[in-house]
Amino acid sequence: MSTSFETWRDRFERLRSNKAFELTVITIIVVSALLIGAKTYEETNRFQQWLLVMDVAITVFFLVEILIRMAAEKRLRDFFRRGWNVFDFLIVTASLIPLDDSEMVLLARLLRVFRVLRLVSMIPELRMLIAALLKSIPRMGYVALLMFIIFYIYGAVGSFLFASVDEKLWGNISLAMLTLFQVATFESWATAVLYPTMETYPYAWIYFLTFIFLTAFVFLNMMIGIVLDVMQKENMLMELESGEGEAAEMQGLRQDVRELQGQLNRMEALLEGHDSHRHHQNAE
Amino acid sequence: MSTSFETWRDRFERLRSNKAFELTVITIIVVSALLIGAKTYEETNRFQQWLLVMDVAITVFFLVEILIRMAAEKRLRDFFRRGWNVFDFLIVTASLIPLDDSEMVLLARLLRVFRVLRLVSMIPELRMLIAALLKSIPRMGYVALLMFIIFYIYGAVGSFLFASVDEKLWGNISLAMLTLFQVATFESWATAVLYPTMETYPYAWIYFLTFIFLTAFVFLNMMIGIVLDVMQKENMLMELESGEGEAAEMQGLRQDVRELQGQLNRMEALLEGHDSHRHHQNAE
Amino acid sequence: MSTSFETWRDRFERLRSNKAFELTVITIIVVSALLIGAKTYEETNRFQQWLLVMDVAITVFFLVEILIRMAAEKRLRDFFRRGWNVFDFLIVTASLIPLDDSEMVLLARLLRVFRVLRLVSMIPELRMLIAALLKSIPRMGYVALLMFIIFYIYGAVGSFLFASVDEKLWGNISLAMLTLFQVATFESWATAVLYPTMETYPYAWIYFLTFIFLTAFVFLNMMIGIVLDVMQKENMLMELESGEGEAAEMQGLRQDVRELQGQLNRMEALLEGHDSHRHHQNAE
Amino acid sequence: MSTSFETWRDRFERLRSNKAFELTVITIIVVSALLIGAKTYEETNRFQQWLLVMDVAITVFFLVEILIRMAAEKRLRDFFRRGWNVFDFLIVTASLIPLDDSEMVLLARLLRVFRVLRLVSMIPELRMLIAALLKSIPRMGYVALLMFIIFYIYGAVGSFLFASVDEKLWGNISLAMLTLFQVATFESWATAVLYPTMETYPYAWIYFLTFIFLTAFVFLNMMIGIVLDVMQKENMLMELESGEGEAAEMQGLRQDVRELQGQLNRMEALLEGHDSHRHHQNAE
Repeated sequence: MSTSFETWRDRFERLRSNKAFELTVITIIVVSALLIGAKTYEETNRFQQWLLVMDVAITVFFLVEILIRMAAEKRLRDFFRRGWNVFDFLIVTASLIPLDDSEMVLLARLLRVFRVLRLVSMIPELRMLIAALLKSIPRMGYVALLMFIIFYIYGAVGSFLFASVDEKLWGNISLAMLTLFQVATFESWATAVLYPTMETYPYAWIYFLTFIFLTAFVFLNMMIGIVLDVMQKENMLMELESGEGEAAEMQGLRQDVRELQGQLNRMEALLEGHDSHRHHQNAE
Repeated sequence: MSTSFETWRDRFERLRSNKAFELTVITIIVVSALLIGAKTYEETNRFQQWLLVMDVAITVFFLVEILIRMAAEKRLRDFFRRGWNVFDFLIVTASLIPLDDSEMVLLARLLRVFRVLRLVSMIPELRMLIAALLKSIPRMGYVALLMFIIFYIYGAVGSFLFASVDEKLWGNISLAMLTLFQVATFESWATAVLYPTMETYPYAWIYFLTFIFLTAFVFLNMMIGIVLDVMQKENMLMELESGEGEAAEMQGLRQDVRELQGQLNRMEALLEGHDSHRHHQNAE
Repeated sequence: MSTSFETWRDRFERLRSNKAFELTVITIIVVSALLIGAKTYEETNRFQQWLLVMDVAITVFFLVEILIRMAAEKRLRDFFRRGWNVFDFLIVTASLIPLDDSEMVLLARLLRVFRVLRLVSMIPELRMLIAALLKSIPRMGYVALLMFIIFYIYGAVGSFLFASVDEKLWGNISLAMLTLFQVATFESWATAVLYPTMETYPYAWIYFLTFIFLTAFVFLNMMIGIVLDVMQKENMLMELESGEGEAAEMQGLRQDVRELQGQLNRMEALLEGHDSHRHHQNAE
Repeated sequence: MSTSFETWRDRFERLRSNKAFELTVITIIVVSALLIGAKTYEETNRFQQWLLVMDVAITVFFLVEILIRMAAEKRLRDFFRRGWNVFDFLIVTASLIPLDDSEMVLLARLLRVFRVLRLVSMIPELRMLIAALLKSIPRMGYVALLMFIIFYIYGAVGSFLFASVDEKLWGNISLAMLTLFQVATFESWATAVLYPTMETYPYAWIYFLTFIFLTAFVFLNMMIGIVLDVMQKENMLMELESGEGEAAEMQGLRQDVRELQGQLNRMEALLEGHDSHRHHQNAE
């Protein structure tokens, strides 16, 4: 029985690394995505039965596919070691939540949407892109904190000053911060936010202009900082590479010159021995 | 007759590579473009007759011009090998569709607009610019796919959640994605999309802020990625060029040192021969 | 008594450089920030008493904390030498303004908001970020001046020409410059500013388009300039560093070669001495 | 009399290069700018008399200042050779147009505004900035042409298709291009332009999305192109500079090695002579 299990695992492993199998999975994901999209149209009601069957088929297919991949691993623990496997596992289990319960329907549907994300875990180029994105997050951490402090202070000041002008925009610090985010994206910041406020507080433009300059300035510097940071690392790597070749060449050259020195030392010793002998001869 | 044909082809070839001819074609294109623009003004009706004559003249001129260029080629196949020739051919044939049929008038007019594009195929600098643009498309492919996946998932979620709030904005996944594109360009995203939605779903801001941060973040990283990608290639080329000069210099230096070594070897052999002779002499 | 004071100072110094103490201060700042945020909600009235107590406690804590840091210094003058200490001192003294006077309440509240800024002076990474931002200000000085001149001229022209169209937007040069800033951020520049103006002055688009192109062009060039400026400095540093290593290597190599020359000189002298001796011998 | 003229010219020249004089001119320009700004306020009517006097004083001052600078030159022709002098001359003569004629008042006022531009010609850093801006214009030429072609084609297509939807936005090609510029700046492009159009033409989003992607794509590539272009030139200069130092060092090293070779040649000749002598001796 153990051997038959291993034969199965081998078969699974072969299946998993099969290009045709991968393509099938990608096709299924795309169909599943189109299905999700189709559900958002009113007129899909007549296809309802067909869509339901398709949905069950896709859910079952994904369940089988992930079970095959789990079985293909030597140990179950190995499967969960890779982040993308955990990612796939969560998406598949999430779509197993039954559709029957009317209250859960919306949640189940939403979870089914995330099946599209499996496209990311299937295509190596997208996986690399996501890995690169995740790597750039820490670089942005402290700038994000600084931005949050600026938003918090301006939000507090804004809700203290302007709450009486427009309760909906400046009612409390959360609303004020949301309004400030709107201002930071330049969306109706003057017509809908600044001008109504200036009718009560004519000097409100100081608040808004300092905020815009501050956020734009910090954002600009952050951008430049990140570009330089990434470039510096790239340059360092390149300099190291090209430098290594040159350094090795230079080392070889110095070695050659040192060998010359050794040879000259030997020759000088010979010449001096010759000379002292001659002096000795003359002294005789 | 064959010789007369060849004389004609030579004449055509000379005409095609003539600067004055090129300038004439460019002038005709610009006039044609101005004509298209003039047609959009209501008051051009009184010039209608004149415009019609001009239009026919330009169509005929372009037809003759492309026939000349085709005749100037040794074989017709060579003409269609270059992408820009196919581009010109399509534009010229498209403008041959007759204006008479009232239903086709709009289409014929639109096709005539594309004659302006011939300016791109005529001016070498613009042709280079377009070639550079086309070369940068594949670099953007996977990021565009990732962006589409983000839009698709948020579109599906948005149409599930907010379809009841505003049928026009979130009615189905296509409308939802268009609305999300509007949000991504920051156009009335807060006043026309977020705030009306927040009246029904007070936590809708989570959906919009995560979407904005995600798209902005991916876009920013894509930009940085492209800039670095292009720069790396440029730098590599430059390092190679400057490196080659330096490496050649270094190689020459090592060769010089090796020649010194050879000379020293000969000299050492001489000294040793001298020495052994002297020892021999002494031994005598 | 002097010794007891010094023991106290030592204790203070130890306390100040204590990680736990720093963490406590950061926690207090965050709590203080949350408190400020909480005050902006209407329903916090029932916690009023509790909030007031907390506020007094935090004010006292900050007062004690800064007094400890001042006592920890050898001389009071040293404390005020560092910019961040002055920054902290101003924030703490500002929050000592009493809340009682009803007219001063708003001001006192606002000053209390700035306590959140102490987070910046507490976290070294944020302090570094701010230092980097301050360093980039002078680089932007002249571009800001140029931008201001453009805004001023367009503001003056705009208020001369369009004051009759919309008194609120173009009434005087200040309003006109604010309107131009709105145009520069692309906020409703066409629908709310350009189109109403074009009804009276059909050629107003020339004014707006030249302004947009000019500011966008100056801004773009400024951005490129800053990126290049920063990059050049970085590259210079890197070239210097990598160049120094290489230059040192090259210097060592030249030294080696010069030593070879010295040795050869000695050898040549020996050979020539030998030779002249031999000639002398032969002459005998 | 000639000598007295030359003494005067010397005095003028000394005055012109005087720091205090320059500062006075800058102050006058700033006062003049403030005066222009002051005129835009309604309440300045009571200062009318005072403003008029000031204005005449400034005009006279500028006239005298430019006459001094012209007199300070050896030949008048030299004065007009420098672009900035022509620039100053035009601004000063323009402000000499009399205010009396009521129809010319607006023009005279506008011309007076441009006196602020003299600040640019006075401050060397601003002059350098402007020179750098002018230098970057040709680089943008062909991209601007390509952009114009895209706008023209989309403008023509837009005015053919959508003229019936909104005469004000798409009435003729000029209006259509202005609307497209509004779309390119993302100003109300969806709420005010796209959605009303989609009510008649449901597929209008194809037109707008392709336009946005095309312009954004061309703009992005242009930006990257310019950054790379500028950087490449900077890098080339730096490589050349640092390369020159290194190349010189390398040349010196090769020279040293060649001198060693010469010395060894002499020594080998000595040794061989020695050797042949010895052989000769032995042969005896």
